[in-house]
Amino acid sequence: MSQKLKKVCIVGSGNWGSAIAKIVGSNAKKLPHFDDKVTMYVYEEMINGKKLTEIINETHENVKYLPGHKLPPNVVAVPDVVEAAKEADILIFVVPHQFIRTLCSTLLGKIKPTAIALSLIKGFDRAEGGGIDLISHIITRHLRIPCSVLMGANLAGEVADENFCETTIGCRDTKQGPLLRDIIQTDYFRVVVVDDEDTVEICGALKNIVACGAGFVDGLGLGDNTKAAVIRLGLMEMIKFVDVFYPGGKLSTFFESCGVADLITTCYGGRNRKVSEAFVKTGKSIKVLEDEMLNGQKLQGPFTAEEVNYMLKNKGMEEKFPLFTAIHKICTGQKPVAEFIDCIRHHPEHM
Amino acid sequence: MSQKLKKVCIVGSGNWGSAIAKIVGSNAKKLPHFDDKVTMYVYEEMINGKKLTEIINETHENVKYLPGHKLPPNVVAVPDVVEAAKEADILIFVVPHQFIRTLCSTLLGKIKPTAIALSLIKGFDRAEGGGIDLISHIITRHLRIPCSVLMGANLAGEVADENFCETTIGCRDTKQGPLLRDIIQTDYFRVVVVDDEDTVEICGALKNIVACGAGFVDGLGLGDNTKAAVIRLGLMEMIKFVDVFYPGGKLSTFFESCGVADLITTCYGGRNRKVSEAFVKTGKSIKVLEDEMLNGQKLQGPFTAEEVNYMLKNKGMEEKFPLFTAIHKICTGQKPVAEFIDCIRHHPEHM
Repeated sequence: MSQKLKKVCIVGSGNWGSAIAKIVGSNAKKLPHFDDKVTMYVYEEMINGKKLTEIINETHENVKYLPGHKLPPNVVAVPDVVEAAKEADILIFVVPHQFIRTLCSTLLGKIKPTAIALSLIKGFDRAEGGGIDLISHIITRHLRIPCSVLMGANLAGEVADENFCETTIGCRDTKQGPLLRDIIQTDYFRVVVVDDEDTVEICGALKNIVACGAGFVDGLGLGDNTKAAVIRLGLMEMIKFVDVFYPGGKLSTFFESCGVADLITTCYGGRNRKVSEAFVKTGKSIKVLEDEMLNGQKLQGPFTAEEVNYMLKNKGMEEKFPLFTAIHKICTGQKPVAEFIDCIRHHPEHM
Repeated sequence: MSQKLKKVCIVGSGNWGSAIAKIVGSNAKKLPHFDDKVTMYVYEEMINGKKLTEIINETHENVKYLPGHKLPPNVVAVPDVVEAAKEADILIFVVPHQFIRTLCSTLLGKIKPTAIALSLIKGFDRAEGGGIDLISHIITRHLRIPCSVLMGANLAGEVADENFCETTIGCRDTKQGPLLRDIIQTDYFRVVVVDDEDTVEICGALKNIVACGAGFVDGLGLGDNTKAAVIRLGLMEMIKFVDVFYPGGKLSTFFESCGVADLITTCYGGRNRKVSEAFVKTGKSIKVLEDEMLNGQKLQGPFTAEEVNYMLKNKGMEEKFPLFTAIHKICTGQKPVAEFIDCIRHHPEHM
């Protein structure tokens, strides 16, 4: 590893990006092997007649996406992504997943060839022709640099409040693990590094499907036992999905924060659960609820369920994943939600 | 296996015992290899001047412990435990754990030597001299018959309502597994049999310690991330505890209903969580809260934490289980609850 100070760039400045900038900025300042200055790519917008980057650099607060929390002064907002990223040794990606391909084409050839990436982006992208594409794979393919991932039970606001929590870094290259942990870990944000990178990332997407099932149970008023069963069967299908489509994953990874912990919080809090409960109680379609409850934003669970279903159908494996399959069919109106439990009564797990 | 019809006796008739009697009675009637008649040992008490056994046998309802649910008429309440148990091939134990030793001495030599037992009793008993004794081990030792266990995310009322859920049977003898599953499984009560019996039983007790930690987090108002981290670290200590004290357990057992599913419901609902939250908010001792909130009944979590702590101390392993240790010290007033999170900040899982 080079003796030079490592430079870090955060690509993204939403709620989660700003919370992580608080941590990264403070660690970079404190640790001797990192350059103090951390750049943060901020998509420029005007707030009350003033540029958001200027506000951040003057007040050290992202007034739009993380109001009420100060960023360390060594975090510098930059409106040009190439400018922000060009000297970085570590690129932390934390933008909505639909922007990642465009960002990568903008950055290609403009970054250090030795740079490494860390993706905090949850959810899959659609592969060409159908099925799923992991965001870290897209970054590696399009930028030609290795990309690790960070996932866990990490609501941004609570992280910014410095409440104790855990996270998981999936990092194939064991040499990079300690470096990434150093820049991320604090006394309140605890990191476990595992080498089972794909599993970590897949957990972060599949949990949203399960959360839809948990929301159905809540909407149907079926109680705690049924909800626990749905969450558990969902977890078992997550494990099986990795086993079939990304073989080589480890069972122990599902016990990390990215696995069971994130699944729990998503199935008890979280908007996939909430909208799915409303889906049962109001009888409205997911599309209508997205408009009404999410300002037209797409809900991650039903989208992921659809891409996963495409893959399962292709392999003739829908019946081996009755929970994922039922949730997809219910979300798309192919099956009434009243039949949800009947679809999982004779689950392969019970054979 | 004998061609004779298998006779079943349920030893116990509380809330959970009555819910399971509903299932067992209906299965015994339906299945050709079981004797229709199922005996249920009922501790006799007078309800409005009438014996509870008489009420159950006339109205087929346990009006005291499971009102509003009919038992199948082939379930016969018997006030004498020897009378109820003497011809049984399968003895299902579902009494409060403090009664098990006395019951076993009453039954010793009076039951079929070929009988097998299934324990639904959650929690540990105290071993002579300190530490824990598994209920199934007590039954096997005192009655000299093999004893399997059944544990899961199974609130009795919801099972009686026939809401869909799952359960885990831990059964060392693979020949007995199918028989036990037959008498327990229905379309709404789904059974997974594993051979990792001790782990199944230990999960059912240790989860109550973790639930105290979840209650502390709720009382302290620390939010979803912290709660998820505490539940996960609790799960990791459960796994480690089995590894140290009951080696040979399987990681996969923790993914069954007895593991992660039961842990979740206990940490979100459940009285250990609730009393522990009140412990933080009111500043009262556990003893006072037991009197006020539980009519003087002992809370399972703090009791289990104490026995577990005895074992950890003996092995010099308190520091390897910082969550269990902190919960014990907080419950016994040796440490202020405000220090709870500081005790787990540098958990061995983060090394």
